Amino acid sequence: MIGNNDIEVVIGGKVITLSGNESEEYLQKVSSYINNKIAEYNNVDSFRRQPSDMQNVLLLLNIADDYFKTKKQIEDLEGELEAKDRELYDLKHELIAAQIKLESREKQIRNIQGK
Amino acid sequence: MIGNNDIEVVIGGKVITLSGNESEEYLQKVSSYINNKIAEYNNVDSFRRQPSDMQNVLLLLNIADDYFKTKKQIEDLEGELEAKDRELYDLKHELIAAQIKLESREKQIRNIQGK
Repeated sequence: MIGNNDIEVVIGGKVITLSGNESEEYLQKVSSYINNKIAEYNNVDSFRRQPSDMQNVLLLLNIADDYFKTKKQIEDLEGELEAKDRELYDLKHELIAAQIKLESREKQIRNIQGK
Repeated sequence: MIGNNDIEVVIGGKVITLSGNESEEYLQKVSSYINNKIAEYNNVDSFRRQPSDMQNVLLLLNIADDYFKTKKQIEDLEGELEAKDRELYDLKHELIAAQIKLESREKQIRNIQGK
């Protein structure tokens, strides 16, 4: 996120000026996601009782967890795509085989009728 | 990440005991990803000059950015899957049409030869 625009966002109640290539819309969306996490955690007693450096680490862990769960989903989707590619490959071959057979039968009919 | 195991990880030099359903392997992978981010950032002068609360927010933003970039990839993959599903649907119909035509030609040949 290094670039040219200066965009102000509010995260955890702090105003932060970000310089980057990302759009304001994107940075606000990411900030709002972090703020929702903070708000969610602040509702949990056992979180509020932690010292602030521990709270920070727990937030980092939670967001990193979302990231890894999403990465896992990508692996699954890539597996599905590969399976569909194989299915497409097989169907194309089956279709070509059927078309060749059909052409040969039609030629056979023309030959019989031509006699 | 709430559950039964007590697993110790080290994040940013701090030992943290996590209770959760996640495997130790997974939690170490996530911790190691966060530690790499911290190490990467600590190589950047402009980051090191920030007060620690700002450093925390920048880390949160960076990890949340990885998460949103990965989510975007999922949307793209889902679009690809839908396109392949449509292609599969069309090919299956084309194959069935070719097979019906082929059967009809074969019946025609049997009829002619039967005469």
